[in-house]
Amino acid sequence: MKAEIIAVGTELLLGQIVNTNAQFLSQELAALGIDVYYQTVVGDNPGRIQSAIETARSRADLLVFTGGLGPTQDDLTKDVLAAYLNRGMSIHGPSMEQIEKLFSSRGIHMVESNKRQAHTIDGAEPLFNEAGLAVGNGLSVDGTHYLLLPGPPREMKPMMEGAGRQWIRQALGESQPLYSRVLRFAGIGESNLEAKLLDLIDGQSDPTLAPYAKEGEVAIRVSTKAATEQEAVRKIDATVQAVKDRVGEHLYAQEDIPLEEAVVRLLRATRRTMVSAESCSGGLFAELVTNVPGSSGEFAGGVVTYTNVMKHQLLGIPMTQLEGEGAPGAISESTAALMAERIRELADSDFGISLTGVAGPAESEGKPVGLVYFAIAERGKPTDVHTTHLSGSRSIIRVRAVKAALYRLWQALSHSEA
Amino acid sequence: MKAEIIAVGTELLLGQIVNTNAQFLSQELAALGIDVYYQTVVGDNPGRIQSAIETARSRADLLVFTGGLGPTQDDLTKDVLAAYLNRGMSIHGPSMEQIEKLFSSRGIHMVESNKRQAHTIDGAEPLFNEAGLAVGNGLSVDGTHYLLLPGPPREMKPMMEGAGRQWIRQALGESQPLYSRVLRFAGIGESNLEAKLLDLIDGQSDPTLAPYAKEGEVAIRVSTKAATEQEAVRKIDATVQAVKDRVGEHLYAQEDIPLEEAVVRLLRATRRTMVSAESCSGGLFAELVTNVPGSSGEFAGGVVTYTNVMKHQLLGIPMTQLEGEGAPGAISESTAALMAERIRELADSDFGISLTGVAGPAESEGKPVGLVYFAIAERGKPTDVHTTHLSGSRSIIRVRAVKAALYRLWQALSHSEA
Repeated sequence: MKAEIIAVGTELLLGQIVNTNAQFLSQELAALGIDVYYQTVVGDNPGRIQSAIETARSRADLLVFTGGLGPTQDDLTKDVLAAYLNRGMSIHGPSMEQIEKLFSSRGIHMVESNKRQAHTIDGAEPLFNEAGLAVGNGLSVDGTHYLLLPGPPREMKPMMEGAGRQWIRQALGESQPLYSRVLRFAGIGESNLEAKLLDLIDGQSDPTLAPYAKEGEVAIRVSTKAATEQEAVRKIDATVQAVKDRVGEHLYAQEDIPLEEAVVRLLRATRRTMVSAESCSGGLFAELVTNVPGSSGEFAGGVVTYTNVMKHQLLGIPMTQLEGEGAPGAISESTAALMAERIRELADSDFGISLTGVAGPAESEGKPVGLVYFAIAERGKPTDVHTTHLSGSRSIIRVRAVKAALYRLWQALSHSEA
Repeated sequence: MKAEIIAVGTELLLGQIVNTNAQFLSQELAALGIDVYYQTVVGDNPGRIQSAIETARSRADLLVFTGGLGPTQDDLTKDVLAAYLNRGMSIHGPSMEQIEKLFSSRGIHMVESNKRQAHTIDGAEPLFNEAGLAVGNGLSVDGTHYLLLPGPPREMKPMMEGAGRQWIRQALGESQPLYSRVLRFAGIGESNLEAKLLDLIDGQSDPTLAPYAKEGEVAIRVSTKAATEQEAVRKIDATVQAVKDRVGEHLYAQEDIPLEEAVVRLLRATRRTMVSAESCSGGLFAELVTNVPGSSGEFAGGVVTYTNVMKHQLLGIPMTQLEGEGAPGAISESTAALMAERIRELADSDFGISLTGVAGPAESEGKPVGLVYFAIAERGKPTDVHTTHLSGSRSIIRVRAVKAALYRLWQALSHSEA
């Protein structure tokens, strides 16, 4: 089985956005055991989209499209493919209802073009869009399989992971179901993780191990085909044990959840709460934690004390600690400790987490870009302060700093639980 | 002039790395006034590389390759192209010297395959690699131009920006450069914006208007080819005026910056500051604003009061306002107003911005998912409270809520500035 990924969108050809969809879909297809021989990007032009379809048909059995399903005149993928296959299009009822509901709930007038998003090519299986309005299409004609996915990654990814993956497996006539488990790691880089697991990744064909990078973290997908779930679990468990033997201290979850969710769950299991005081991370810690649904039971909130005055006003840190000759400064171990302790006391919480450092682009207080202190203050225990030197852009340093703090907290919680 | 970008490397087809080279090269070619009609990715396989060359030749005049110039057996781009063109290869002296010097300086034995990196196809112009060992090639045969660049971005980028750009301009003669300007909009959806600009988008071929979606915002790129920058500015200005006449109140920047950066700049220009008090958005407002470099002058920070107790403890909002029979509750106009006013007073800032609502997945206080109140408290003025009904996932509702608050703030600042 050979596949080709076709990303449709002039914004890609102009270099306005990077084609992360092709990477994601390549990983997905690899996990399904399908070889990708080509990736193609084509603009919002009917003639060239059709030419891309013809070329891809001549060299692949499965064509996975992403993009061009939206409401605008530039969204042409479905129209061109339908015309190419001499098929009509019809409205997918549930998708149309979803579109109408959205517009009426917002009290805004729906322009006619929005209906286009509910179209399916005749004979195609509609793939419902949980995160947006454009319905996906799965269609097999004359031995070629066509999968049409939306372009925005937040819509495309859940559709591929759900209905898309399932449709491909059906289309290919897979007899044995594929089972997979995602392992998530923190506190270790991708290349370091891969180096430690190289023999497992290269040597084993069943289960297969496929590494992929996540924002500030790394993950590995373990996959196997098996007759029963029991057999799959047994095979995957054996592989996971081999992974644990090498890098067990970094494995924080055997499912696809971010580190902050693992931390929230550990807090819940041990009935403890936390609060945060952030400087350089500017609210990212709070934002990631509150993005975990239901986290208000474990995370009460916190402060973003971006300036020294705010550190003083909201946390009561003395100005003499922060400024003036001989003061440790805002970016220091002792300020990190004070921030964590003060917010913990103020909110009467079990844990107080703080971050203060230099995210860049310029140095601050004469301290270099990438220097970040974080502290974990726990009720009744001495405060734990860490120094990290991080690299990358401003936003990458912020993510890495927050993930480093979460990893330490996860370690502390794991050990105290055990 | 039509170009195609061909990235060579199996690691791209496996999804191990993302194809940022294609984005960079697309931007470079656009700036040179060259249309990119396709991007292709092909693996390290001679037959498929040759097939990609044949396909690209049939639809483009300039083929820009990246990758496959290294020392290993998998690096095949030059070999395959030379064979396809019936040409031999020879050693580029300065590149060979550089390779030999490197190995002798490190005191390691040079394996024979390293010499491959100094090869040029007969008749090609060698493009010296300042950041690595593999020499680039520029070659014109039978009206088709071939530019071969290394794969690692740190080698490819300087080669393209230097010798590569120069070689293309020589090979093509007098292509007019392309000028473009990005327009950013807020408070309006992509399809609604396009509907209002449909005649401009469809009717005008010079300048062209290309819409594209950003996270929670929309953007349009206006592009034109012109002999001089002055002429380009005149043409683009005329088009921007036509856009302004239709949707001027939503146009917040004529460059590619997010809404929060436009707000920070307006605050700076009017010498004012702001702070935030967030509930449902969980720190996202602060996170976006502090992601703007240098924003600490305008944004002092804020609080994330995720629970009622925190709203009481950090902001001093009476518990009777938040809980109990007949209380307005945390998700209410009056609580939004109080949060914005209290944080503004606490930090002695010019603006206090608050957000409180239901991001989902479940309803809260009997109020529906997507209901979000936000308030803008300005020193010496009555507080401005807004009610919005948003749709989407938890994280999308949070983004849309924050962008809605930022848009109102931008409006307030624009009007007060005028």
